[in-house]
Amino acid sequence: MSLAQALFAPRAVALVGASGDASKNTARPLRFLRKHGYGGRIVAINAIRSQVLGERAYTNLADAPGTIDHAFVMTPGDTVELVVEACGARGIPVVTIFTDGFAETGPDGAARQARLAARARALGVRLLGPNSMGVIDIPGKLALTVNAVLEMDALPAGTTSVVSQSGTMLGTVLSRGAARGLGFAKMVAVGNEADLGVGELVELLAEDRDTRVILLFLETVRDAARLAAATRKAHAAGKPVVAYKLGRSGLGEALARSHTGALAGSDPAIDAYFRDCGILRVDQLETLIEIAPLVAGRSPPALGRAPRVAVVTTTGGGAASVVDRLGMLGLEAAAPDEPLRTQLSALGVRVSGSPIVDLTLAGTTYTYDAVLQALLDSQSCDAVLAAVGSSAMFHPQLAVEPILHASPRPKPLAAFLTPHAERSLALLAAKGVPAFRTPEACADALAAFFAWRVPRTQAALPAVAWPDGLPRAGRLDEAQALALFAALGVPVAESAAARAPDYRHALAYPVAAKVRSPDIAHKTESGGVALGIANRAEFDARVPALLAAVAAAHPDARIDGVLVQRMEAGLAEAIVGYRHDPLVGPLVLVGTGGTLAEIYRDYALALAPVTEDEAAAMIAEVKGLATIRGYRNLPRGDVAALARAVAALSRLALVAGQPVAEAEINPLIVRREGVVAVDGLVALQA
Amino acid sequence: MSLAQALFAPRAVALVGASGDASKNTARPLRFLRKHGYGGRIVAINAIRSQVLGERAYTNLADAPGTIDHAFVMTPGDTVELVVEACGARGIPVVTIFTDGFAETGPDGAARQARLAARARALGVRLLGPNSMGVIDIPGKLALTVNAVLEMDALPAGTTSVVSQSGTMLGTVLSRGAARGLGFAKMVAVGNEADLGVGELVELLAEDRDTRVILLFLETVRDAARLAAATRKAHAAGKPVVAYKLGRSGLGEALARSHTGALAGSDPAIDAYFRDCGILRVDQLETLIEIAPLVAGRSPPALGRAPRVAVVTTTGGGAASVVDRLGMLGLEAAAPDEPLRTQLSALGVRVSGSPIVDLTLAGTTYTYDAVLQALLDSQSCDAVLAAVGSSAMFHPQLAVEPILHASPRPKPLAAFLTPHAERSLALLAAKGVPAFRTPEACADALAAFFAWRVPRTQAALPAVAWPDGLPRAGRLDEAQALALFAALGVPVAESAAARAPDYRHALAYPVAAKVRSPDIAHKTESGGVALGIANRAEFDARVPALLAAVAAAHPDARIDGVLVQRMEAGLAEAIVGYRHDPLVGPLVLVGTGGTLAEIYRDYALALAPVTEDEAAAMIAEVKGLATIRGYRNLPRGDVAALARAVAALSRLALVAGQPVAEAEINPLIVRREGVVAVDGLVALQA
Repeated sequence: MSLAQALFAPRAVALVGASGDASKNTARPLRFLRKHGYGGRIVAINAIRSQVLGERAYTNLADAPGTIDHAFVMTPGDTVELVVEACGARGIPVVTIFTDGFAETGPDGAARQARLAARARALGVRLLGPNSMGVIDIPGKLALTVNAVLEMDALPAGTTSVVSQSGTMLGTVLSRGAARGLGFAKMVAVGNEADLGVGELVELLAEDRDTRVILLFLETVRDAARLAAATRKAHAAGKPVVAYKLGRSGLGEALARSHTGALAGSDPAIDAYFRDCGILRVDQLETLIEIAPLVAGRSPPALGRAPRVAVVTTTGGGAASVVDRLGMLGLEAAAPDEPLRTQLSALGVRVSGSPIVDLTLAGTTYTYDAVLQALLDSQSCDAVLAAVGSSAMFHPQLAVEPILHASPRPKPLAAFLTPHAERSLALLAAKGVPAFRTPEACADALAAFFAWRVPRTQAALPAVAWPDGLPRAGRLDEAQALALFAALGVPVAESAAARAPDYRHALAYPVAAKVRSPDIAHKTESGGVALGIANRAEFDARVPALLAAVAAAHPDARIDGVLVQRMEAGLAEAIVGYRHDPLVGPLVLVGTGGTLAEIYRDYALALAPVTEDEAAAMIAEVKGLATIRGYRNLPRGDVAALARAVAALSRLALVAGQPVAEAEINPLIVRREGVVAVDGLVALQA
Repeated sequence: MSLAQALFAPRAVALVGASGDASKNTARPLRFLRKHGYGGRIVAINAIRSQVLGERAYTNLADAPGTIDHAFVMTPGDTVELVVEACGARGIPVVTIFTDGFAETGPDGAARQARLAARARALGVRLLGPNSMGVIDIPGKLALTVNAVLEMDALPAGTTSVVSQSGTMLGTVLSRGAARGLGFAKMVAVGNEADLGVGELVELLAEDRDTRVILLFLETVRDAARLAAATRKAHAAGKPVVAYKLGRSGLGEALARSHTGALAGSDPAIDAYFRDCGILRVDQLETLIEIAPLVAGRSPPALGRAPRVAVVTTTGGGAASVVDRLGMLGLEAAAPDEPLRTQLSALGVRVSGSPIVDLTLAGTTYTYDAVLQALLDSQSCDAVLAAVGSSAMFHPQLAVEPILHASPRPKPLAAFLTPHAERSLALLAAKGVPAFRTPEACADALAAFFAWRVPRTQAALPAVAWPDGLPRAGRLDEAQALALFAALGVPVAESAAARAPDYRHALAYPVAAKVRSPDIAHKTESGGVALGIANRAEFDARVPALLAAVAAAHPDARIDGVLVQRMEAGLAEAIVGYRHDPLVGPLVLVGTGGTLAEIYRDYALALAPVTEDEAAAMIAEVKGLATIRGYRNLPRGDVAALARAVAALSRLALVAGQPVAEAEINPLIVRREGVVAVDGLVALQA
């Protein structure tokens, strides 16, 4: 018996703590299993009753007869360990724990959960949960859950499967999908993921014959590496993975700080991770439900330009609401090109300069059919959207007939229905046509579809040696940081240490002087930086003043003279950063330098290491770097050299043991030719 | 008979062009009027039939008996003028024209429409449309429309009225509202607004006894001044006005240009206008429908800080999806304060540091009631949101009972329902509790509510005299522009004209020199600007070089020497602009100066003129100006002087005849003390 079989298709299920009171939550699994036609054996375990809702009940698992493949545990928290022990003793391979009060409550609960998971592992028992609402397999007729939505009369079967970190969301997805004719295959609430996690479940679903699309409702990512591998497996099996993830607004505070780590707050890191994995990310909750038919059976498009959506409608206002939204998301509504115009003209459809093909006047079914097919076959667009008006409510067959007729093409055809029109939505769903209730979800889905990429295959890059003489703990000082950047292949400004009494150095003027101290993190704020020193006389005047200012600000700081550096100038300042994210691992960042860029949070992020081509693509995403990409009459900067520097810093991910926690070149000066790092910081792993 | 009576409560309606074929669109008004219980007389006009759907029909209006208050015209475009003529002859006061093919088709149609409107005016006939889907008054039992959604059995009566520029959207709002128990009073599709426009309809609704909230679906604004007055009338009557407006993404291209006009693209102008009018703007289409109970009977809140929303739930995942979205919109989910924690503790509710009060364990109805009331009475939040889980689907009464019980407070209580749960939505709607289908609409509505302001009362400011000697047409040259700014009270850089042969001037160095030419708009790009000239020798070298460069770039340009200007330096550069927007009138803008700010489109916009306090509030909205408001250790700039300059430029709106089309100070240099304008442009109305 495989894990998937025990989880989704158990021959017998034990309901531990099943209540005899039909109104209780803990009575639901028994009621739902029966109601939805479970074909296996149900074994009720109840400490005091011998019957539960008409089912023979046993005092404990040890007394229950026959082989049991899956136990569903609803007993109080302090009994769960004993139940798992009993499951191990009986050789039950999978235990789903509904009971809560574990890691989600704090450190004590987390400790109990860790103990539970360790014991289960030792017993060879796989755990789902704790704090899991259960497992549903609609084609397999398994409704092993306490979610109240399962009171529905018939569960809608389909080929979309769902893994959720929220139990409630199983009901949200199921009930909302059912209301518009969308069905599901397997649905799993993973709870606290003490053992079985999202990644392993995606692996199982990648192998599952009933599943064509995998939807994820996520609050966090607990097993990034495993999920990354699983999504690649799903991709290889032709199964798109779509995620709706919370935590998009937790940035605020952290972003006010100055380090790379802060700039690259965790949600942008998750975004970079999803992109790397080929996971489509949706913004709106209902998009998660409605997007499945849009992606099922399709591959990531690879346009290399703004996607163009053709819009056909009998209702101008309805279509405009989607077009407006598409524009907000960077998609174009495509006006017909010349060949298409000729075709449409022949069909009696007059096309103005508007991107919307309005059939108000010509809108017979015959015309609509022909227009749709012409759009689907045209080179002028990458997707076709049909906006359907008020008739969708009471004349569903008529209103959506042309859309149902259209011969499937690799190019997506989607529909937005303006009125409340569940029957029309269901007709479309039955034919596999993506159909949307709101203009926002419609545009969100199309944007996610066109942003979809194949999972990245990381280039096999050689390991990087840690430069001799640099520490492997604590922070590097500026000179050490620059030495590290140089060792990675980043050009750095010429510099030299200058010490008392005469602070001699051999650099040509103009120079900058910066205090050297292991105790001062913010040199500029402490008065420890002098820029644009033109000659020796000025140097001799300003360095003592600088040291005096620092001493006043930090009387106890150890000071080791100054670092003298050639003054560098260029066209723009960039920031290049590296960070080991606790969730998703090594990341590289590139953004515009300076205070304004920090305020606007304008940067691009990717999983490290990246190639120069990948770095160039990142640079293209940074709005503020437009100034060096050829903006108005401004001179172009050396974007290729910047890309080389980004790729170079990203290779910190290739140092054995990944000793660097975060690194930042700030600023990296971009010239017409070349780049040069003039300051930076490096913090090593604790 | 008042306009409102003829429009919404006609004693008799003529249906001109009513079809006898029940399946035709043009048969709908007769069917719908009957179906929904119209109590007045229906007069069918059909050129060839004497009976229409069992109703006696007349060949033309002249033959029809009795007084007719309202004609609904569905005949082909070329007949409409004759019909209006006939309406005038019979003294029919209001004519709604469903027929399309007028201004929406281009210049010819626009000309026919203008002729029609002029003739109607002469006849004393008021027009709704053309291209109008009609008028609905649900309490008044008038369903004078062709919208197919009216096939519904019973129309839901309520106190929300709707004015829409899209006819389809009447059906969208009505059907979606009905599905969740939300009702409506009057609904009007204004079509092309040849006569009756959105502004006048809002005026009528402000006086309408059945209307408590006014919703607008807008594609454009055609009568800004009248709508502005109408919204003030509605505000005085305690009726909130909410708008969903398209056109948010048409910016792209225009924004790439360099002038104020471009930076202040029309959607931000509309935003500024709505704010000025006290119109709440919603982002998502369904928010327009669902927001009504949230604003009905309420006044604009005036918090002066980030709004705090308390969240209570029995479902963590559902609540988190709204909280995440609230955060994205700048609202805070408020964790309970100390007094509230004590209260909740006493109710057996443990509150961790989380902003979500989760009743999973303690969730009896009694507890829920008490917790809700405690939150509604607490000082720690400005609104309360209840997120309801899966039980809302099949146990609506139980799931939403505590919310229905809660005693109304001035502080809003809203609900988000995670499953598909129309009955629960209807129960809440019946009690006037705002309830939302999606986390996005829920957060959007709360954000719009808290951004809601009372309509602005413009301070009575004295008229401004146009400075002597300045032209009133064409463009001002730089010296003239600076003279205008100075006359308004903006400090400007000291400057002087210098001409051949020796370009003598009396300014102290360092200076800038800029070519003077009426033919060159982009001086810098043409090589016509020299900055940082340190002394006379450098001046004598660089000015001829500058003039040579300009002559090479623009061989035919007339050149009148150079403008010499004191070099100015400060902490930051700002841009201050003024524009006469074709839709909403005079606008003032303030943003960060420089290329990056242009790229990030970071500016604030308001209707001009503004006071210094209003200008200060605008400055606070500009992210990039954080650098002078006290950011990290950066020195503070003179924000008050900047505000004075913004207010000063905005007074261009007070010049008789508003001769200025656009003006821009760019840059305005902000110092520690004071500001100074160093360049700018002024274009006068054509």
